[in-house]
Amino acid sequence: MAEPYKLYYWPILQGRGEFVRLVLEAAGAPYIDVARLPEEQGGGFKPLVAFMQGEQPGHPPYAPPILVHGDFVLAQSAAICAYLGQRHGLAPEGEGERMHALQLQLTIADVADEAHNTHHPISGMLYYEDQKEAALAASRNFLDERLPRLLPYFERVLERSGGPWLMGETLAYPDLSLFQLAEGLAYAFPKGFARAAESTPLILALRDRVAALPRIAAYLESERRLPFNEHGVFRHYPELDAHPAE
Amino acid sequence: MAEPYKLYYWPILQGRGEFVRLVLEAAGAPYIDVARLPEEQGGGFKPLVAFMQGEQPGHPPYAPPILVHGDFVLAQSAAICAYLGQRHGLAPEGEGERMHALQLQLTIADVADEAHNTHHPISGMLYYEDQKEAALAASRNFLDERLPRLLPYFERVLERSGGPWLMGETLAYPDLSLFQLAEGLAYAFPKGFARAAESTPLILALRDRVAALPRIAAYLESERRLPFNEHGVFRHYPELDAHPAE
Repeated sequence: MAEPYKLYYWPILQGRGEFVRLVLEAAGAPYIDVARLPEEQGGGFKPLVAFMQGEQPGHPPYAPPILVHGDFVLAQSAAICAYLGQRHGLAPEGEGERMHALQLQLTIADVADEAHNTHHPISGMLYYEDQKEAALAASRNFLDERLPRLLPYFERVLERSGGPWLMGETLAYPDLSLFQLAEGLAYAFPKGFARAAESTPLILALRDRVAALPRIAAYLESERRLPFNEHGVFRHYPELDAHPAE
Repeated sequence: MAEPYKLYYWPILQGRGEFVRLVLEAAGAPYIDVARLPEEQGGGFKPLVAFMQGEQPGHPPYAPPILVHGDFVLAQSAAICAYLGQRHGLAPEGEGERMHALQLQLTIADVADEAHNTHHPISGMLYYEDQKEAALAASRNFLDERLPRLLPYFERVLERSGGPWLMGETLAYPDLSLFQLAEGLAYAFPKGFARAAESTPLILALRDRVAALPRIAAYLESERRLPFNEHGVFRHYPELDAHPAE
């Protein structure tokens, strides 16, 4: 049996680690979500902090998520998703198509960063409450100006690919991430996302199609899937989703 | 002779396109910086806008930089740098090492995004003057809390690689981007960067080594290298670089 992958990510939130978890789950790849183990089994925050302080062997990561496979250590969620996708039949064949999958993944990651910026515009290291005024302005701009440009872009990719997936007929890792993006935006901005997604039925259909994949459906029902909460990338603060016309 | 690459990027700023330009220049690859051509030769903003509105053929990009090579269309600066690096001997051989190069590139891109966020924390679509208060707070946090963590990370990568480059003995595309990051931070925050870089001599040595590469040295002297200015990722607003103790 193959040695399981080890995923190092914050144990209490979905965050950027969730893009990786979804690829592992869709691939049916055995993995250990290390920080979710009990501390006496090497879990908790300690192994994450050790990585960030340069105390673990292998190529240095700046921050989680971190994938460890034997001696191989890889960070950056988009790079990890590409690596896993290529190893487990969840990436296209051929250099050009692989680059297109990476391009889509990076654009999804950019939108996730923008969504994070709505509640932490000044710094991820300060509390939300200490940057709430800026967060209100950032969220207004995100919902009014950004989502109405970003969602139609992915809709256009799905139109051009011929569907049902972003790369055409074959599921690839960016599809899993677009599912997560749609779920996260719907959690954070139930009203704002519903408005923006009215004109993007292909994205909503892709989201439902990913959720119905047998391995993903089983994962979403399991305790391995953490709930959305106010620690991750997508946070629900009702005041940030309020429309000024209301 | 090989067909030249076409780069589509804003003609008046370095921005994220500069990471791509540096790979093209270091590779000695023929390319046309399309938007810098006169409008009657197809230059200007028009071809960029056409791409963003989905009016050009090929795989859809969300935003510039966009690389066109024959029928192949690729967006996202990190993906373009990886693609060019792999084609022109500026990426490592082997899947694992290629992924490490991509990881480094993505981490450099994250720092560039954070640098952009210092002057546009609320939204890239609003004027600096309309978010100046938030920008002052974001810059303070970036210089006091973020750079002192981020620069030592790249210093540690250089220590572990054995140098002189991030991946060890062979120049690769992330080295060119780390040069650009250091140059950009030094332009935007001459005082803040000098303070943070005091403890990272390997980064400064790498920056000088890239600048001395014959093709890069020629490029930096040429008119093809646009100057830093207040339109790009790295902008110099003296008030954002001021230390509160001064």
